[in-house]
Amino acid sequence: MKAYRSYEDLPRIKLPLGQEVFISDSTIRDGSQMPGIVMKKKHKIQIFEYLNRIGIEKLETFVYNERDREAVREMLDRGYEFPEVTGWARANPRDIDFVLDMDGIKETGILMSVSDSHVIDKMGLKSREEAEKKYTEALQYAVDHGLRTRAHIEDMTRADNEGFVFPLVEKLLEIDPDCTIRLCDTLGYGMPFPEVDEPYGIPYIVKRLREIGTKNIETHVHDDYGMSVACSLAGYWYGANWSSLTFLGVGERAGNAELEKVALFLITRVEGFQKYDLRSITEFAEFMEKEIGIRVPRNKSVVGKNIFAHESGIHTAGVIKNPFTYEPYPPEIVGGKRLLMIGDSSGLEVIRFKVEEALNELMHVGIKLDKNDPRIKAIQTDIQKLYNEEKRVSAISDEELKKYVEKYFMLQPIIEPIGEEHSAEEPNLDKNAG
Amino acid sequence: MKAYRSYEDLPRIKLPLGQEVFISDSTIRDGSQMPGIVMKKKHKIQIFEYLNRIGIEKLETFVYNERDREAVREMLDRGYEFPEVTGWARANPRDIDFVLDMDGIKETGILMSVSDSHVIDKMGLKSREEAEKKYTEALQYAVDHGLRTRAHIEDMTRADNEGFVFPLVEKLLEIDPDCTIRLCDTLGYGMPFPEVDEPYGIPYIVKRLREIGTKNIETHVHDDYGMSVACSLAGYWYGANWSSLTFLGVGERAGNAELEKVALFLITRVEGFQKYDLRSITEFAEFMEKEIGIRVPRNKSVVGKNIFAHESGIHTAGVIKNPFTYEPYPPEIVGGKRLLMIGDSSGLEVIRFKVEEALNELMHVGIKLDKNDPRIKAIQTDIQKLYNEEKRVSAISDEELKKYVEKYFMLQPIIEPIGEEHSAEEPNLDKNAG
Repeated sequence: MKAYRSYEDLPRIKLPLGQEVFISDSTIRDGSQMPGIVMKKKHKIQIFEYLNRIGIEKLETFVYNERDREAVREMLDRGYEFPEVTGWARANPRDIDFVLDMDGIKETGILMSVSDSHVIDKMGLKSREEAEKKYTEALQYAVDHGLRTRAHIEDMTRADNEGFVFPLVEKLLEIDPDCTIRLCDTLGYGMPFPEVDEPYGIPYIVKRLREIGTKNIETHVHDDYGMSVACSLAGYWYGANWSSLTFLGVGERAGNAELEKVALFLITRVEGFQKYDLRSITEFAEFMEKEIGIRVPRNKSVVGKNIFAHESGIHTAGVIKNPFTYEPYPPEIVGGKRLLMIGDSSGLEVIRFKVEEALNELMHVGIKLDKNDPRIKAIQTDIQKLYNEEKRVSAISDEELKKYVEKYFMLQPIIEPIGEEHSAEEPNLDKNAG
Repeated sequence: MKAYRSYEDLPRIKLPLGQEVFISDSTIRDGSQMPGIVMKKKHKIQIFEYLNRIGIEKLETFVYNERDREAVREMLDRGYEFPEVTGWARANPRDIDFVLDMDGIKETGILMSVSDSHVIDKMGLKSREEAEKKYTEALQYAVDHGLRTRAHIEDMTRADNEGFVFPLVEKLLEIDPDCTIRLCDTLGYGMPFPEVDEPYGIPYIVKRLREIGTKNIETHVHDDYGMSVACSLAGYWYGANWSSLTFLGVGERAGNAELEKVALFLITRVEGFQKYDLRSITEFAEFMEKEIGIRVPRNKSVVGKNIFAHESGIHTAGVIKNPFTYEPYPPEIVGGKRLLMIGDSSGLEVIRFKVEEALNELMHVGIKLDKNDPRIKAIQTDIQKLYNEEKRVSAISDEELKKYVEKYFMLQPIIEPIGEEHSAEEPNLDKNAG
């Protein structure tokens, strides 16, 4: 009999191929391209610091203006082991020269757009052959000048992979067998199911890349259809060893797969995987919100304010008994904090719990209350009235609750059991056993 | 040779099993449980209206307080064909009576928690057998009173499916062979890959439910690990016919799989699927933000402000040539609007485009500009200076751009080509062909 009643009980997952996997950050490159966002030099350096605390292996950055170059110099000066600072270039010698000019950068990504829409319509090239020539020459140039390389195969999920992309990749690997092939799902068209053919099937593409001898495969997935995290994990699952991600998913349009979600999955769900430390990411998210103006919705996975907040009757009652019932992992893993709230969907149990807390704090004693205490019901009735009148749209603060506690427990310690109409009608939503 | 240069060129996907699929909304049930959110009666009715416009087949609601009951009566009074209004109950006759008291509600969900953590620790039951007795009796009660039923199998992804849940489902189907089995991934532990065993593998669980004769399978997936949309689609992919979703993913903690993402996927990616109309969802999202206080980040898929906003050099240059290059689907599908912005990552091409637009508007003529016009470069230099000084953190407004146009094109129509240091150093990021 399998019984899971604690985090330790839950089975961990094995990546089927057992390869070592890594994260490559693109927050200060793709992330900074997010419309409406301006990242200053100090922001980029602070992001670098947080990535270092987490233990992310690599980041990529632009090096075209003096602002960015100064940021890179400052990152390199810190002498950290990781993240390694790598460059980004279009497929031409001039761009690659900018990377070469930065002492201390040893690897660059090179943009290689492969969909016909990008090759013909965007770049104005005449043919795929012209694109291939351009890309192989640029890669050769980078290799000749001593750089490690990544080929950013842009818009691969809307391209003719069998007819153009895989043969191109074979040529790239002839030039640099260690070249990391970045599978860019530029428009978020990727799908995580192994039965899906190219151009959309991430498992299919990863398997084919392995078949043609690619040693280093990296996914870079946009979130237009909301499947970026699943596709990034599909990459690992079917054989990729790198995933290019951004913190909070910042990036063009719907942004990229979120670094924090993938890292959390790895450290809490994958067997033997412990190399990232996420205890600073709640603070990291606050920094992004306050300093750069990235809005973090309450229900954003991992770092939103609601992730360990509980208000509804059933959930608060469960969490008070054992947080495992309604928390997917302990808050301390991500530097988060549990919060029990009283609102319009709360039941008696959370009111009892919070009244007990308030009483013990006010009177410095250790009182235990029963949730059927008529004073608890009276407080619930008062609170429900506020919501039923529809004038109240926020949760009850701890200060307000203290006033109720004073009213019912300290100023008028004995009251009659109440029996108002809507109180009698409402089942206790905290009593799952009904 | 496969060449995809327009939306029509892109191949659509077939669901492998070819079943008809539906959406069941939980925005006003699970969504309203979101901590910190209070949905008033009028909000719930407005959400009902938007769901009707989209064409969503079903919704679920609480009916325990007079506020909710009034909302339901008003929904039913509108006489719409969809969404069908259904109830929600815990597994006891009293809760089901509340649903039965509502004339016009013909179906109810019944909460049946199945993980040992929920059965033993949360509900305080002594054994799985006790839970099974409770659930089968409640289902029998609902069926005896003429309700169609849904069994909400709570926390199924942390439960002993082979040892307890599948045998329980068999007993439920004996009582009601048409009962919809809701696979609740309560803590977001589900995974979308077919090789993953229970309790996490959504494909595995869906396949097993089909094997034991379940006709109606519905997923209900939380987003704690960011895979809720992929797991909902995995449900459809491997045989579920329903998906329970919430608009914007509102709900407990990290919330639920987003209705708008799944619906968009279906209408734009699945062959022959056209039954939802999403043209009102950008307005729907604005309503949720303004009236209920749900924050919508700029980069939220489908409805965020950035979804059709372009600022970086390469992206704006592509979109000006052909929106297909960097837009996953046309804005009008979701009632969105394209927005070209000038910011710190912009190149010459978007400035040329917007200056042309401004000039033609100011002078009522049809001017065509070359992006190498020295006046365009001068404007770019002025703008870059603002960002390089790091005092500017927002995009350039259309009003501001008009002032630059006046300065360089109308007040001093002839200027010398400029050659400032950082201008010469910066490659034109809009020239991918570089």
